[in-house]
Amino acid sequence: MTTSRNGRVGRRPGGPDTRGEILKAARDSFADKGFTATSLRAVAREAGVDAALVHHYFDSKDELFIESMALPVDPRQVAARVLDGPPEQLGRRIATVFLGVWESPDGQTRMKALFRSVVTSDEVARIMREGITQMILQPVSQTLDVPDAQLRISLVATQLIGVALARYIIELEPVASADLPTLIDRLAPVLQLHLTG
Amino acid sequence: MTTSRNGRVGRRPGGPDTRGEILKAARDSFADKGFTATSLRAVAREAGVDAALVHHYFDSKDELFIESMALPVDPRQVAARVLDGPPEQLGRRIATVFLGVWESPDGQTRMKALFRSVVTSDEVARIMREGITQMILQPVSQTLDVPDAQLRISLVATQLIGVALARYIIELEPVASADLPTLIDRLAPVLQLHLTG
Repeated sequence: MTTSRNGRVGRRPGGPDTRGEILKAARDSFADKGFTATSLRAVAREAGVDAALVHHYFDSKDELFIESMALPVDPRQVAARVLDGPPEQLGRRIATVFLGVWESPDGQTRMKALFRSVVTSDEVARIMREGITQMILQPVSQTLDVPDAQLRISLVATQLIGVALARYIIELEPVASADLPTLIDRLAPVLQLHLTG
Repeated sequence: MTTSRNGRVGRRPGGPDTRGEILKAARDSFADKGFTATSLRAVAREAGVDAALVHHYFDSKDELFIESMALPVDPRQVAARVLDGPPEQLGRRIATVFLGVWESPDGQTRMKALFRSVVTSDEVARIMREGITQMILQPVSQTLDVPDAQLRISLVATQLIGVALARYIIELEPVASADLPTLIDRLAPVLQLHLTG
């Protein structure tokens, strides 16, 4: 309930900077309270706007997370694409979808920036860890009918994180210049072994 | 051929800061020219000391690299321990030795610092990439009797890098708090598949 740019007082209208202020409040909340404890209502309060206005801009907490962290891809779509197919091909789909994000035109620049923030900031690491766990790792692990599904999925994540770091950031050869189909062929059985071996 | 701390002029004696100056010159050379193109002779010239003095402090370029990058472990010893045993257990030995370095008392602090520098500095990444390739990846890949040995070894490196990043830096659960024997049991067959699958 602050004064908006055009001088009107009271319930904030959807001004040009309102969306940005909501995103800033969301980032702060994800950092302070974590992903799980953050609510759209609390973000609205923090940004000094009505909860309905947050809902006007963002459908859900997931969307607020994606936008506030400037993710190059929607993790829910990643999870959906990964899960769309036979279980015995899950490793291959994970490799294909994950590397596809990195190989997309502006994917690499944005993923690199995100990666570096995760590695250098404990806060960003915590936010991303929670968000990615909720939006990708949990949905995928729920489809695995094994008691140690979460460990298996987190091990899959280690292989993916390592390939991304080695190929795109450290540029370790020959993995850095290997062609994409070769890389997917190598990773698919390894990821499948983590999942079901 | 500069004036040393105790005022003597001419060929530099082994003063208290000479070793440090050699290390600084070595770091600069590794960064500018890379690991392969750096020689003890050139480092001596850069540090303004006699080549014999560099040899007095450091047995080899490898040792100069280890000391100048403040590595928590000697990569040549890592390679030797990894190679000491039957080929079908290579994956397990790699997992055991690598995680052993991270789990050692001051290993984690030093490895974390090194890791963060590699991810945030292209220069450190290049130095480490070359040094580790020469001292660990090459010797290990030479023992694999396959045409794509280097790709296989670099894929092993991706899995190791990813586990380290997820467990010790991002602290992704449950891989972050998994006990060491469990983690080695999970990684051993995956690394073996990268190597010989």
